[in-house]
Amino acid sequence: MTQVAVCGPADCTPDEAAAARAVGRLLAEHGAVVLCGGYGGVMAAAAAGARRAGGVVVGILSGRDRTGSSRDLTIVIPTGMGEARNALLVRAADAVIVVGGSWGTLSELALARRGGTPVITLGGWRILDSAGEPVPGPIPAADPADAVRLALARLQG
Amino acid sequence: MTQVAVCGPADCTPDEAAAARAVGRLLAEHGAVVLCGGYGGVMAAAAAGARRAGGVVVGILSGRDRTGSSRDLTIVIPTGMGEARNALLVRAADAVIVVGGSWGTLSELALARRGGTPVITLGGWRILDSAGEPVPGPIPAADPADAVRLALARLQG
Amino acid sequence: MTQVAVCGPADCTPDEAAAARAVGRLLAEHGAVVLCGGYGGVMAAAAAGARRAGGVVVGILSGRDRTGSSRDLTIVIPTGMGEARNALLVRAADAVIVVGGSWGTLSELALARRGGTPVITLGGWRILDSAGEPVPGPIPAADPADAVRLALARLQG
Amino acid sequence: MTQVAVCGPADCTPDEAAAARAVGRLLAEHGAVVLCGGYGGVMAAAAAGARRAGGVVVGILSGRDRTGSSRDLTIVIPTGMGEARNALLVRAADAVIVVGGSWGTLSELALARRGGTPVITLGGWRILDSAGEPVPGPIPAADPADAVRLALARLQG
Repeated sequence: MTQVAVCGPADCTPDEAAAARAVGRLLAEHGAVVLCGGYGGVMAAAAAGARRAGGVVVGILSGRDRTGSSRDLTIVIPTGMGEARNALLVRAADAVIVVGGSWGTLSELALARRGGTPVITLGGWRILDSAGEPVPGPIPAADPADAVRLALARLQG
Repeated sequence: MTQVAVCGPADCTPDEAAAARAVGRLLAEHGAVVLCGGYGGVMAAAAAGARRAGGVVVGILSGRDRTGSSRDLTIVIPTGMGEARNALLVRAADAVIVVGGSWGTLSELALARRGGTPVITLGGWRILDSAGEPVPGPIPAADPADAVRLALARLQG
Repeated sequence: MTQVAVCGPADCTPDEAAAARAVGRLLAEHGAVVLCGGYGGVMAAAAAGARRAGGVVVGILSGRDRTGSSRDLTIVIPTGMGEARNALLVRAADAVIVVGGSWGTLSELALARRGGTPVITLGGWRILDSAGEPVPGPIPAADPADAVRLALARLQG
Repeated sequence: MTQVAVCGPADCTPDEAAAARAVGRLLAEHGAVVLCGGYGGVMAAAAAGARRAGGVVVGILSGRDRTGSSRDLTIVIPTGMGEARNALLVRAADAVIVVGGSWGTLSELALARRGGTPVITLGGWRILDSAGEPVPGPIPAADPADAVRLALARLQG
């Protein structure tokens, strides 16, 4: 079973929410399990998109119980580990799609790349090395369909 | 969605495997998601029982990838956290059913009780206080059906 | 540097506190770093004993900051991981001395044995297998001096 | 006791190693405990600098034992948690000084900022928002003395 994490800020723009919802829906339509952080914003939008398409959504929460979690989660994993759960979320993913930017989101992107997991980005923050060049690794996508296509393609290569 | 963890040794007896398989099957038949450690013995038997009954099984692995995990898992969460995953497994469970005894299993039982999660036991190790009396908390079950009944009843109380 | 964890309940008896204090003092006098959970009861007593003897004490906290931690800690590691920190505490120890019993304490004992770390017990709970026999592994000590001697001896073997 | 983490790549340049060594030395001279990831490169250089100045260094390792860790650590915490230890390292720090860039280092910077911990940077990667502006939060330092001064000043504010 392919498992793809969708990561992004709890406090997101309407465009980011729409993109996350489309990503969730497309992943579900392709039969992939959607992993997310389980709370609001991009997380909730990805969960809602996947659930509406009949998909399975796993929310890996920072909290020790289900308080504040999205209603669209099929499985809820309250870790009680705080932000260390970001490491778990990307460790459990075969690929990560990032929608938008925040410190928590950036930690997930970085931990995924540290572990060698493919990362596809839809907007969000950019990372430059000390020479001002983009750090190679994250793959920018043009739109949700492109993001899902790129993520799934990386898993068949 | 009710989530019940089935915990027990990777190196188990045939009777324990049969009991775990029955527990997994009954949980699935009651619509509960089965959580387990994802490897062999009691874990694999519970997963197999639930999967055969059409249930959803989540394996929360100690390892950093899927190596050695059961083929009957619907969702795989490789934590890469070693035995600290035992804390995650019981934290994510609404109730825990313990089948048989081992140090890892005992840690799960103790962490579950520490966190206030109901624990039902089918055989396994016994815990006495310094006066030689059984420590209250774990609820012994007569057989797999009794264990599942007791676990689900605790969640409706 | 030898690192020995002292584990026991936050809610302990005066005798357990006295024993933990003596264990902490003796470990410090032997040059061992004392690890503990960092809060009250046995943890605080072990820290106080070691600190009075000029030792180094590391508190590995379940909380995300120093709230409620003992004042006798040299180093404070707030993990923010809840009870999963019990796994970290014993993983970081070369040996574990258990004073008294509680569910959290039992989880530490079990995780230590699961990982192959020597465990010395001063009172506390007892663990019997399904035949009613004591599960081998934990080494009972007669008194604090015996506990420290046994712990340090296991590290030179 | 003030605890400052020094984070940076295991595979670093000679200039980064020299900067990390100076940072470790200055922190020790100011009485701060140095936290680091415990392995090579920037981590080992910070540890060596602090140790030479008589300071206390805590290595929070990703591995389950001391294999590969620096010889300059006073306290070793093998977490066995893989890269989730990055979250622990910054959680335990009152401030974080980043020297150089890598995915692991970036995850530590991001997790620290996510948790509200002050971050001072000496070189390394830069983070731009979607409009191409530097994301506010990390404080750039001119040299090791400036980095230590900025870190300690943030803790007295």
